[in-house]
Amino acid sequence: MYYLKEQVLEANLELVRRGLVIYTWGNVSAIDRERGLVAIKPSGVNYDTLRAEDIVVVNMDGEAVEGWMKPSVDTRTHLEIYKAFPSIGAVVHTHSTYATAWAQAGLDLPCFGTTHADCFCGSIPCTDPMDAAAMMDDYERETGRAIVRRFEGLDPNITPAVLVRSHGPFTWGENAAKAVYNATVLEEAAKMAYITLDLNPHAKCQPELQEVHYLRMHGPKATYGQ
Amino acid sequence: MYYLKEQVLEANLELVRRGLVIYTWGNVSAIDRERGLVAIKPSGVNYDTLRAEDIVVVNMDGEAVEGWMKPSVDTRTHLEIYKAFPSIGAVVHTHSTYATAWAQAGLDLPCFGTTHADCFCGSIPCTDPMDAAAMMDDYERETGRAIVRRFEGLDPNITPAVLVRSHGPFTWGENAAKAVYNATVLEEAAKMAYITLDLNPHAKCQPELQEVHYLRMHGPKATYGQ
Amino acid sequence: MYYLKEQVLEANLELVRRGLVIYTWGNVSAIDRERGLVAIKPSGVNYDTLRAEDIVVVNMDGEAVEGWMKPSVDTRTHLEIYKAFPSIGAVVHTHSTYATAWAQAGLDLPCFGTTHADCFCGSIPCTDPMDAAAMMDDYERETGRAIVRRFEGLDPNITPAVLVRSHGPFTWGENAAKAVYNATVLEEAAKMAYITLDLNPHAKCQPELQEVHYLRMHGPKATYGQ
Amino acid sequence: MYYLKEQVLEANLELVRRGLVIYTWGNVSAIDRERGLVAIKPSGVNYDTLRAEDIVVVNMDGEAVEGWMKPSVDTRTHLEIYKAFPSIGAVVHTHSTYATAWAQAGLDLPCFGTTHADCFCGSIPCTDPMDAAAMMDDYERETGRAIVRRFEGLDPNITPAVLVRSHGPFTWGENAAKAVYNATVLEEAAKMAYITLDLNPHAKCQPELQEVHYLRMHGPKATYGQ
Repeated sequence: MYYLKEQVLEANLELVRRGLVIYTWGNVSAIDRERGLVAIKPSGVNYDTLRAEDIVVVNMDGEAVEGWMKPSVDTRTHLEIYKAFPSIGAVVHTHSTYATAWAQAGLDLPCFGTTHADCFCGSIPCTDPMDAAAMMDDYERETGRAIVRRFEGLDPNITPAVLVRSHGPFTWGENAAKAVYNATVLEEAAKMAYITLDLNPHAKCQPELQEVHYLRMHGPKATYGQ
Repeated sequence: MYYLKEQVLEANLELVRRGLVIYTWGNVSAIDRERGLVAIKPSGVNYDTLRAEDIVVVNMDGEAVEGWMKPSVDTRTHLEIYKAFPSIGAVVHTHSTYATAWAQAGLDLPCFGTTHADCFCGSIPCTDPMDAAAMMDDYERETGRAIVRRFEGLDPNITPAVLVRSHGPFTWGENAAKAVYNATVLEEAAKMAYITLDLNPHAKCQPELQEVHYLRMHGPKATYGQ
Repeated sequence: MYYLKEQVLEANLELVRRGLVIYTWGNVSAIDRERGLVAIKPSGVNYDTLRAEDIVVVNMDGEAVEGWMKPSVDTRTHLEIYKAFPSIGAVVHTHSTYATAWAQAGLDLPCFGTTHADCFCGSIPCTDPMDAAAMMDDYERETGRAIVRRFEGLDPNITPAVLVRSHGPFTWGENAAKAVYNATVLEEAAKMAYITLDLNPHAKCQPELQEVHYLRMHGPKATYGQ
Repeated sequence: MYYLKEQVLEANLELVRRGLVIYTWGNVSAIDRERGLVAIKPSGVNYDTLRAEDIVVVNMDGEAVEGWMKPSVDTRTHLEIYKAFPSIGAVVHTHSTYATAWAQAGLDLPCFGTTHADCFCGSIPCTDPMDAAAMMDDYERETGRAIVRRFEGLDPNITPAVLVRSHGPFTWGENAAKAVYNATVLEEAAKMAYITLDLNPHAKCQPELQEVHYLRMHGPKATYGQ
C-alpha cells in the first residue's frame, strides 16, 4: 500500500500549497478497489511533519489495518462515498473559504461560466439539513449518507463535488491529485460566483456554453491537452 | 520566568506568520498563576527585532517586575481578563481584518458552520458601548471590564473569544499557542461568516451540528486528534 | 521564430507571477505579421515545465508549422482577433478572478477612476450572448467573432481588452509583455470597480479626468515615463 | 541631498513590500525645508531597478536640480501639498486597492474603529470634483489645489491622508517612512470600513473612543511605545 500512502501524502501537502487548508484541517484519502483498502490522513496531525508512513490504511469497515495513528475523524464519511460511487479513486475534504461559505449559506453553487464548466457539469449540490437524531447517533456516517442521498439522479463522475450544508466541500476524482485539483477549482469557482452574484443577481450561463466547455475537457471528443 | 517569555515571544511571532498583525500591532501575554505574574509584549516594538528578553513581566497590579521596556498599553485589559477568567493561561489581542470589521459593525459573530463550531461554542459576543466617562478615566481597564461584563452568563472556556466593539478581537486559551490558534480560527470564521451572510441573510446552522462538532474536538468524548 | 517563442514563454510565466492563472489555465500568443505566423502556448501544459521550444507556431489557418505539441484550444480565437485588429502584436487570455466575475455577470466594466483610465479608454466591453448553433459548430472561432462584433465602432488600440460573456477576459497589445500588463491592470481595475460599486452604486468618473489620464500615458503628448 | 534620496528610495521600495503598488505605480517624495528642495521618484521607472542616484531632486518650481531622469508626473501635486502644509516632511501617492475604491466611490472614509483612530483623527476626506477647464489646463497642480481646498478647516497634521476623487490616496508625514506607514494603515482601514459597512450600514464609532485612541498614540500624553 506504500504507493497509495505516498499519493495521499502528496495530495495532502498540495492542499496546503493551494491555500485550501490551515493547521490540521482537511483530509485526503485514496482507495485500492481490488484490496478494498483506503489510505487516509491521520487525525489532527500537522502537515509540516506528516510523512508517508503516518498515513493510515483502513478497510471498508473503517478498521485500521496499517499504521500506528488514528485515522481522520471523517473516515466514515469517506467510506460512504467510496461505497456509493464505485468509479472514484480518491476523496478530498477541506474548509476552503468560499466553498465553505456557500455550504454555510445552504445554497447550491450555480455554474456562472466556463471556469466552473471546464471542471464540473452543472451546479454543485448542497446537501439537505440532516436528521438531528441520526446525526447525534453516527455523525460521520450520516454526513456520507447525506451526500449520497443528494446525488440521487445526479452523476458523481461529471459533478465530482458536493457542499455539505453548514460544513464544507468534499470533492473526488480518479486519483488523489485529481480530487485535489477539483477542490482547487471548486474554491476558485465559488469565489467567482460570489462576486458575480453581487454584481448581477440575475447572472446566467447559457447551457450550450457549459456543454461545449465540459466536452472540450472530458470524454472521447475532448480537444484540450496533449 | 524565562519559559513564559519564550512562549510569549513565539506566540507573538506566530501572529505575524498567520497574517493577523502588521507593524507593532497586536500583543500576546501568558500568566504564571502560582506566582501571579504575567509576561507580555513590550509596547510598540517591531516583531522582527523582538527577543525573549524584551518580553516584560508584570504583577497583577500591572507593575513591571522584570525587563527594561514598557509593557503593552493594553496590559491592564489583559489583567482584567486573567482576574475574571481564572482557568485561562494566555490572552491575545489583534486587529485582524474580518474579526475587527465585525467588532466595528457592533455585531456578535454568529456560528454559521463547523469551522466556527469546531473551535467556539455559539456566537462570539460583541461588547456593549462603554460609558464615556469611565472610558476617559481608565480606558484599558474599562475595556477589560466591558469584556467581563459581556461574559456574564457565558462560559469563557468554551467561547474563548470576544469582539470589543469598534476595536477588535481578544482571544484566550490554556497557553499562548492555543490563544493564537483561537485568534486565527476567529479571523477565518469571521471572513466566512461575512461571505455567508452576503450570500444568504437567513443562513442558520443546526444547534445539534454545532454540538456534535464542538464535542468531537473538546471534552472527555473528543475523538479528534491522536 | 525563436525570438517570438521566447517572448511568448516569458509572457506566459509572467501570468503565473502576477497571480492571473493557476495550473494550465490561460494562454499568450504573439504574431510575426510579415511571415503571418503566430507563436502560442501548447494546450494543457504546466507552466513550471514550459520551455521556449514547447511553444507552437501556427499559420493564419491554425495549422502548426513548428513544434511537436498541440497548440492551445483557444488558438482559433486568437487568430480571429489578429485578423480583425491588424495593429496588435500579441493576445492574452486568462480566467483572472475579478475580470472573470464581471464577464460572468455579463456586464461592461465601467471606468470608475484613473487606475483604469491610465490603461484603457472608456468601459471594457462585454460580448453579447452567442448564437447556440454557431457556437456548437465552431466554438473557438465563434468566440473570436463575438469579440470582433463587439468592437464594431470601438478602437481596439485604445481599449485593448474585452470580457467574453460567461467566460473571461482577453487582452492584447503591441507585444506579449504589454498584453500581459494590460491583463494585470484589467484584473486590478475589475477588483476596484467591484468594491466601488458596492460602496456607491451611483459612482461616476468625469470624462475629462479619464481623458487627461489616458493622454498623459499615451500618444504624442504623453508626459509619463522617461 | 544624498540622505534624502536614500530615504525616498527606501520608502518607495517599502510601498512594494507592503503590497500598495505594482509595476511603476505610486511615488514617494521628501522635502528639505531649509534648502527648499524635494527628492522624488523618477517617472515610470520600475521599483526593482531603482537606485538612490535615480531619485530626482527638484526645487519648489518643479525644476530638476539633480539627477538625469524626469521626475514623477505627479511632482506638481506633491509641491502644492508641501507649500500648503508647512509642517510635513514627505508625501506618498499610491493606487492601493481599497483606498482607491473609496476615492472612486467619491466618499469620505469614516472612522469605524480604533485601527483607524490610532493613526487618523476623524474621517479621511475625499476631494470634490475638479473644474474641467482648470484640470485640462494644469492637471497635476489642480489636483494639489483640490487637496488643499478640501483641507480648509481641517488639520493635515492629525489627518495625514486624503482621497483624491476618482483617483486614489495621498498620505503624508514627518518623514518618508511615516508617510508610507500612513498609506499602509489607510489601506487597511479602508478595507475594514468596506466590510464593516456591508455588515452594518449604520455602524458608528463613539467619538470618545476615537479621542482616547488617538491621544494614546500622539501628543504629549501619548502612552504607546517606548
